[in-house]
Amino acid sequence: MSAHETASLLQLCRIMRPDDANIVGNVHGGNILKMIEEAGCIVGTRHCNAQNGDRCMAALVRVEKTEFLFPMFIGEVAHVTAEITYASQHSLEVQVKVTAENILTGAKKLTNKAALWYVPCSLKNVNKVMKVPPIKYADQEQEEQGRKRYEAQKLERMETKARTEEVVPPPSNPEQYTVGYSQSTLIHLVGPSDCTLHHYVHGGVTMKLMDEVAGIVAARHCNTNIVTASVDAINFHRKINKGCVVTVTGRLTFVSNKSMEIEVLVDASSLVEPDKYRAVSAFFSFISLDKDNKPLPVPPLKIEGEDEQRRFDEGNARYILNKAKRLAAKERQQ
Amino acid sequence: MSAHETASLLQLCRIMRPDDANIVGNVHGGNILKMIEEAGCIVGTRHCNAQNGDRCMAALVRVEKTEFLFPMFIGEVAHVTAEITYASQHSLEVQVKVTAENILTGAKKLTNKAALWYVPCSLKNVNKVMKVPPIKYADQEQEEQGRKRYEAQKLERMETKARTEEVVPPPSNPEQYTVGYSQSTLIHLVGPSDCTLHHYVHGGVTMKLMDEVAGIVAARHCNTNIVTASVDAINFHRKINKGCVVTVTGRLTFVSNKSMEIEVLVDASSLVEPDKYRAVSAFFSFISLDKDNKPLPVPPLKIEGEDEQRRFDEGNARYILNKAKRLAAKERQQ
Amino acid sequence: MSAHETASLLQLCRIMRPDDANIVGNVHGGNILKMIEEAGCIVGTRHCNAQNGDRCMAALVRVEKTEFLFPMFIGEVAHVTAEITYASQHSLEVQVKVTAENILTGAKKLTNKAALWYVPCSLKNVNKVMKVPPIKYADQEQEEQGRKRYEAQKLERMETKARTEEVVPPPSNPEQYTVGYSQSTLIHLVGPSDCTLHHYVHGGVTMKLMDEVAGIVAARHCNTNIVTASVDAINFHRKINKGCVVTVTGRLTFVSNKSMEIEVLVDASSLVEPDKYRAVSAFFSFISLDKDNKPLPVPPLKIEGEDEQRRFDEGNARYILNKAKRLAAKERQQ
Repeated sequence: MSAHETASLLQLCRIMRPDDANIVGNVHGGNILKMIEEAGCIVGTRHCNAQNGDRCMAALVRVEKTEFLFPMFIGEVAHVTAEITYASQHSLEVQVKVTAENILTGAKKLTNKAALWYVPCSLKNVNKVMKVPPIKYADQEQEEQGRKRYEAQKLERMETKARTEEVVPPPSNPEQYTVGYSQSTLIHLVGPSDCTLHHYVHGGVTMKLMDEVAGIVAARHCNTNIVTASVDAINFHRKINKGCVVTVTGRLTFVSNKSMEIEVLVDASSLVEPDKYRAVSAFFSFISLDKDNKPLPVPPLKIEGEDEQRRFDEGNARYILNKAKRLAAKERQQ
Repeated sequence: MSAHETASLLQLCRIMRPDDANIVGNVHGGNILKMIEEAGCIVGTRHCNAQNGDRCMAALVRVEKTEFLFPMFIGEVAHVTAEITYASQHSLEVQVKVTAENILTGAKKLTNKAALWYVPCSLKNVNKVMKVPPIKYADQEQEEQGRKRYEAQKLERMETKARTEEVVPPPSNPEQYTVGYSQSTLIHLVGPSDCTLHHYVHGGVTMKLMDEVAGIVAARHCNTNIVTASVDAINFHRKINKGCVVTVTGRLTFVSNKSMEIEVLVDASSLVEPDKYRAVSAFFSFISLDKDNKPLPVPPLKIEGEDEQRRFDEGNARYILNKAKRLAAKERQQ
Repeated sequence: MSAHETASLLQLCRIMRPDDANIVGNVHGGNILKMIEEAGCIVGTRHCNAQNGDRCMAALVRVEKTEFLFPMFIGEVAHVTAEITYASQHSLEVQVKVTAENILTGAKKLTNKAALWYVPCSLKNVNKVMKVPPIKYADQEQEEQGRKRYEAQKLERMETKARTEEVVPPPSNPEQYTVGYSQSTLIHLVGPSDCTLHHYVHGGVTMKLMDEVAGIVAARHCNTNIVTASVDAINFHRKINKGCVVTVTGRLTFVSNKSMEIEVLVDASSLVEPDKYRAVSAFFSFISLDKDNKPLPVPPLKIEGEDEQRRFDEGNARYILNKAKRLAAKERQQ
């Protein structure tokens, strides 16, 4: 049976164009996240409509921590493969792999692995969550592992609230290498092409905007070519709909020798009802590259005040934890 | 071996968005042609670089007559499958199928079949045509059929020169239903995202612009919702490169009871060297649809002058020929 | 109170990409005008909905003369700051500043200042103009200055009608350096992404198309790299809605030693109701630049016929007047 005929598997590919990349030709991490989410949304929506009942769309509720293993370049073909790997009663997990193919040399590289959680929402009433049809597992072990991932993310989603910290505008003449110096905000008016069939913003569109702001913050701090290294788990707490203005703010929280952690806060407000709410928040990690795409040292961050120090310490804790996890994963593989 | 690992086969899919479609939700034929060409370019370029020698890109030289069997809609997923079906020493044929999948109902329809001819051009010297590596055929019959198609298109390409007819600007107050009344021209400044790695415009980008102009001509003539029904064989005589201005003009040549034939002429000129040249020309057929997507009668065309009469007669001949071919094809299938 | 929380102030930023610029990397003036209008529309719509009553959108009715002080380049971050500076009963003035930041060197330049006038239109009934809530002024002097600007533009808008001059198609073989030689027309089918929430074309989208045509005219006349130097005041007389075809024509009216003035005429027609109407008209000034971005002399314009001579003389008068105004402004600053 061919790939695109299997309901629970989907392949998507696209050639990378100048608009997908920065000026030195590295494809923006945000564009990769957007393709990942498009594939996840298609495979999830298709699966949840393979039953009777209201028509529905899969709405993104969570993305697990995602690493960018290699940069992708203009002219390469991105292959995105999405597969449903677990289904609970009301949500499903989609695992996605991204491969970059150089069609001139034939070289292929795995650039990303991601795991996304979706919930099917009725097209008639977006607040009505539909039931998810069961999937077939290769064996009991596979189902058991999926259930564990499901329980873990459920717990974490319940514990985590959207970080409701206020965004403080930077001082008017900030000193270089301070948090205020590189802090950046963009706003975007949500148009029809950003939206799903029920007029809510695709999760992938939001992630692309977040990556864009984080990239500007990183470039301002170190004045070099920068690329996305990883994104921490993101929970989508509130939906954003057509006609909203989204305000996306990024600020440095922590800087190690070779990487920067940027907190990105997404606020949405309707143009006609000016109440603002925090829709999403996440931590992006960026690294700085030289002309040969090798990592460069990152200038230290000048901390000012207690809040910045607290965020720095928290970022440091996340950094140490992630390092330990990566080491443990490597050891398991050996 | 999975689909995307086979060098000579490629699948590409994408969800259709509001921007891909007209105001009643029908996806523009030009966007479908663009996806078809993107798939053909990837599979062709990949194949021609699977050997030693200069790196090269597959440049589109011809598209065979393409029919649009069903309209596609916003929210549907377009699946594009491209396969190399014949290789001569210096050119290759790619056959492409497009399927529309409604991910809410699971319904699938074959919407297009197309055949494209590519020639591999060196990235170092775009005028150097590279050799095409051989492909494997299922049997001798398959190879023989391919060779026949190759000889037929080669003959036709040699016989056909770009129609070099001058575009006459319409009179200032044209009467409704005349050729001058609906004649339309657009100009487009070629940007980096329109181009291949050797800075030439993708054939698919040109076809999209051509479909856009033809659609405006058709809508001006009958003031209804119109869709692309078919495109006659297109030969790409001259390349168009980055920084050029392309002038795309469409004019009605022939109108039957249910369809309109529009001749589209593409001229290119560099902004810095103002010599204009005819790069491509083609005939598009459009039909007019009512609210339930059923064909409507088309108002007759008011012919003025000998040139318009000659073009009308030629269009009529093509119309009769195509009808006979369709009938013959049906009988062969039975 | 922080900048982006103040209802009457808005900051927007975006990194400039290859598609925003011409082939030598200068960002098109039209893209800057589009960002300016996007910021103005957001801040205006937000302000007018901060009261009870029908929900509404701010519709652009006028842009004051706008100068482009410095070119902007790919990779720079454009910062657009919009602030409501005057509110009458039914209209409001938004002043916008654009700064280009080179995020690699940290260098910043003021590239544009603009003033836009908006009118709030009900989302239920677009012909119903809503009341504008009052704004707070720093002092009485500020309010008084605003009232003067309001009266001046009101007078000018009442006096100015859209130039209804017919566009004459150029002769078929025009001589170089004549008006007919560089005259250019583009048509654009209005898509959903071009439109506001009430399905009318954003003023900024129209200005971008106008700048595109004007740029092609200027490049055809002098065959060099050209950039937008300024745009005369633009009045938006009639709205353009989704599904319309807009025809944008540009023609040289006046050429000085170092600059070109191009008249741009925008006609709109619905595809289903073929009555064409003049929606907007404006004068754009362009200059020609060498490789180091220094101004080049412009070839003189060959005038043919009385109409062209009259338009040339009028253009000359505007040129002399603007020069005098600039001189006076400089003297006031000293």
